[in-house]
Amino acid sequence: MSFAHLLEIDRQRGQSLYRQIAEQIKLQISDGRLPAGTQLPTVRQLAHSLNVTRATAQSAYGELQSGGWVESTVGRGTFVIAAPQNEDIITAVMGNQLTPDRLMGNMQRIGRIVGLRSLAYAEPDPALFPTEEFWSSLMAQAHDATDLFQYSAPQGDEMLRVELSVMLGERGIAALPDEVLVTSGATQALAVVTQTLAARGDYVAVEQPVYLGLLHILGTHGARPIGVPLDSEGVRLDCLEQVIVQHHPKFLYTTPNFQNPTGTGMSAQRRTDLLALAARYRLTIVEDDVYGQLHYGDTPASPLKAHDTEDLVVYVNAASKVLMPGLRIGYIVAPFAMQDRMISIRQANDLAGAPLLQRAFANFLHRGRLKIHLRRVLPHYRERRDALLQALQYAMPHGVEWTRPEGGFCCWITLPDDQMSSDLYHEALQHGVAFTPGDAFLIKPDGHYHLRLCFGSSTPEAIHEGVNRLGELLRERTTVRFRGRARDLPLV
Amino acid sequence: MSFAHLLEIDRQRGQSLYRQIAEQIKLQISDGRLPAGTQLPTVRQLAHSLNVTRATAQSAYGELQSGGWVESTVGRGTFVIAAPQNEDIITAVMGNQLTPDRLMGNMQRIGRIVGLRSLAYAEPDPALFPTEEFWSSLMAQAHDATDLFQYSAPQGDEMLRVELSVMLGERGIAALPDEVLVTSGATQALAVVTQTLAARGDYVAVEQPVYLGLLHILGTHGARPIGVPLDSEGVRLDCLEQVIVQHHPKFLYTTPNFQNPTGTGMSAQRRTDLLALAARYRLTIVEDDVYGQLHYGDTPASPLKAHDTEDLVVYVNAASKVLMPGLRIGYIVAPFAMQDRMISIRQANDLAGAPLLQRAFANFLHRGRLKIHLRRVLPHYRERRDALLQALQYAMPHGVEWTRPEGGFCCWITLPDDQMSSDLYHEALQHGVAFTPGDAFLIKPDGHYHLRLCFGSSTPEAIHEGVNRLGELLRERTTVRFRGRARDLPLV
Repeated sequence: MSFAHLLEIDRQRGQSLYRQIAEQIKLQISDGRLPAGTQLPTVRQLAHSLNVTRATAQSAYGELQSGGWVESTVGRGTFVIAAPQNEDIITAVMGNQLTPDRLMGNMQRIGRIVGLRSLAYAEPDPALFPTEEFWSSLMAQAHDATDLFQYSAPQGDEMLRVELSVMLGERGIAALPDEVLVTSGATQALAVVTQTLAARGDYVAVEQPVYLGLLHILGTHGARPIGVPLDSEGVRLDCLEQVIVQHHPKFLYTTPNFQNPTGTGMSAQRRTDLLALAARYRLTIVEDDVYGQLHYGDTPASPLKAHDTEDLVVYVNAASKVLMPGLRIGYIVAPFAMQDRMISIRQANDLAGAPLLQRAFANFLHRGRLKIHLRRVLPHYRERRDALLQALQYAMPHGVEWTRPEGGFCCWITLPDDQMSSDLYHEALQHGVAFTPGDAFLIKPDGHYHLRLCFGSSTPEAIHEGVNRLGELLRERTTVRFRGRARDLPLV
Repeated sequence: MSFAHLLEIDRQRGQSLYRQIAEQIKLQISDGRLPAGTQLPTVRQLAHSLNVTRATAQSAYGELQSGGWVESTVGRGTFVIAAPQNEDIITAVMGNQLTPDRLMGNMQRIGRIVGLRSLAYAEPDPALFPTEEFWSSLMAQAHDATDLFQYSAPQGDEMLRVELSVMLGERGIAALPDEVLVTSGATQALAVVTQTLAARGDYVAVEQPVYLGLLHILGTHGARPIGVPLDSEGVRLDCLEQVIVQHHPKFLYTTPNFQNPTGTGMSAQRRTDLLALAARYRLTIVEDDVYGQLHYGDTPASPLKAHDTEDLVVYVNAASKVLMPGLRIGYIVAPFAMQDRMISIRQANDLAGAPLLQRAFANFLHRGRLKIHLRRVLPHYRERRDALLQALQYAMPHGVEWTRPEGGFCCWITLPDDQMSSDLYHEALQHGVAFTPGDAFLIKPDGHYHLRLCFGSSTPEAIHEGVNRLGELLRERTTVRFRGRARDLPLV
């Protein structure tokens, strides 16, 4: 069979070849050009006809197979089976409950919906990844590869800790390499911090709304989150003090720089007051700064930890948002007394990280490539933020409110009433736009329906299209609602 | 300064250049050829004079600096400071308590003791790593790198799960790719299993002695281990049944193939009986098979899971012992009902693994390189096992007993009395040989002093030297003991 001419492979595109091939075959199946039962070429034939490696062809088929598009039988070949319709995937995505871990786990599935505009995930745009530059840093480790394939220190690669110490210093945080604990992403950092500071049943104060991944971590370890609301300057200290006095939380989790899901920052005055309040009650603050270097204003944002004269702040950061999440590299700078315990817990969780990727990241930092990368991508992300705000202004019906993100990837939308929101997540997916429902970020409902929209991984055009579709859905609902109410009026 | 002629760099050796440079400089410092205060060349000068890259020179200095051998001051240069004597490192290694996590954390420190014969860690020999072959598998991912730097599925790379499913099938375990959960090494696998099955305060039955890392994991999560002794055929079922009836353990942890620390296997009859007992009490068995493919007999060892008709076995394996631990890749095959919960817990621990290394491992497996690697290394490890047994036979004083490892890297030594053991760990380090004290593998002392000796990462010569030194120490102690007792006799 020859169907290679149906596939358009663009070697200049950021997307990998195997994924391009898989996507194009999916489109052909969806369009009915490759009906169920069609035999696809062998891996060898496909590789030959497209002039790609067999590994690439195999990867494309692997992706199609795991997505349920094709079926391979040894000795017979690969056949198109009934294509999963978007509706099937949406049904799978909906599941029973939109819990934080289900929403996070849906990331892969949502990526399989054809034609979707996804504003659902707070992730950087792969098209902006400095893949080649990082690959050079990886290649530079070839001579040390044997050492980097051995067991390594649970605290992380020494050279990476040196580089992180330098970068932290530039942001005002004085941390020796020995005071840095490298983790598997910010998630492991937050898991280790939680295990170190809070036992089952203990209270933890969190901003409300808050990063849903943290709620999943706290839930897994049996810690109980207490919400502290935000105002325009950040976490409300009167409410925090009340929580401290009533519940003695083991720590406050906060994201002063470009909070997830709101995208907003904490004012300078609020930071000062928060540190003073924490000092008064000896409250540990866990600062999540994963968005701190993604700022769209004129001046870089300073971490809270840079002003932590009392050593009360546990600082958490990662390479996931500023560089690439697949590296799985995060780090913690903790007060001295906690460090040994954290290393011990990290050992119990996964022994140590992968030294090769840590060393490559060290090399990348050493060569100044992260700074160059940030200078290159910040204008793009700023443009997308602006596109989102403009699209919201244009498309949202009266009464809908939203935050103005100063950094990061997130924007928080509040609908004026519940009627507008009924089944919105599901219907939006059916209309080709994904967001994250706000309930996932709240410990208890606050009487409003919220949406988190993320603008990091979509082009300005896709953002406009996605927001316009959402706006249409909401306007329809407003109309339906008025019709509904009209019917409820007495017929006099 | 020119001291490049002091350093002998061998580009053909398995050890990386930077480590060779660092080791040689350490030797020069130890020998007094580079006294404290000596200014070392700049990174640029060193790289030039040795014809290595600046990154390599920088790495060498990084290693020296973190080991406390040199000090770098910006603008001034790098200077030799007082060299840490072996005794300083040994003091640091000894610490206060030889807890499992401290013993594991000492791995890096022990590696800095000059001239040490280490029989302390159950690790494969880096000199036998298939570094170049694996590097090819890594290079083959260049075109897909952007995709592999994104967030990935918590369950692990689909292509790796396909390859693992094939390999498991060859070992008698029928597991679909969807039933495999990829983890960060066996440690994360065991942590996820523990979190899934046991709550704080729950009992867990473990072989006695048992892998010390498991005890650290159980301790971190507040689960309580109950020891079940081993006999020559494996875990004793009469004792296990008693533990089941009395304590209702959440699971039994067992390593039927080449147990750590004893190196012994479970007999076929015992396996059948264990599965029958587990079925009777519906006891979950957690099988750790990380050494299962490292067998020194004529026939490959079968996993317990291959005979698990009742779906009671949670199977854990990893690339760490059979290939390279720095990949940080492990995997779980669990009964269906546990799978979702395990994926959710893995998400709370570190979200997902590094897709690049997973995909490279998939490629390595797909190309049949793991089988080739095992065929190549098994004769080496068998030779080392034989060397160890021979050396023990030759060097150990009367009354010392040891196991005969049938696979893996571990051998378990039992001393005839306590007197012989007093301060042995410390003194052995001072005499240039490291082992792991047996107490770390026991829940409660069994009245004997034990040592774990590992033969995987040492040459037959080093094994002979290490065991001979140990034998001398033990023989001296026997003499001292008799002298001591003699003095205690009444002088009549």
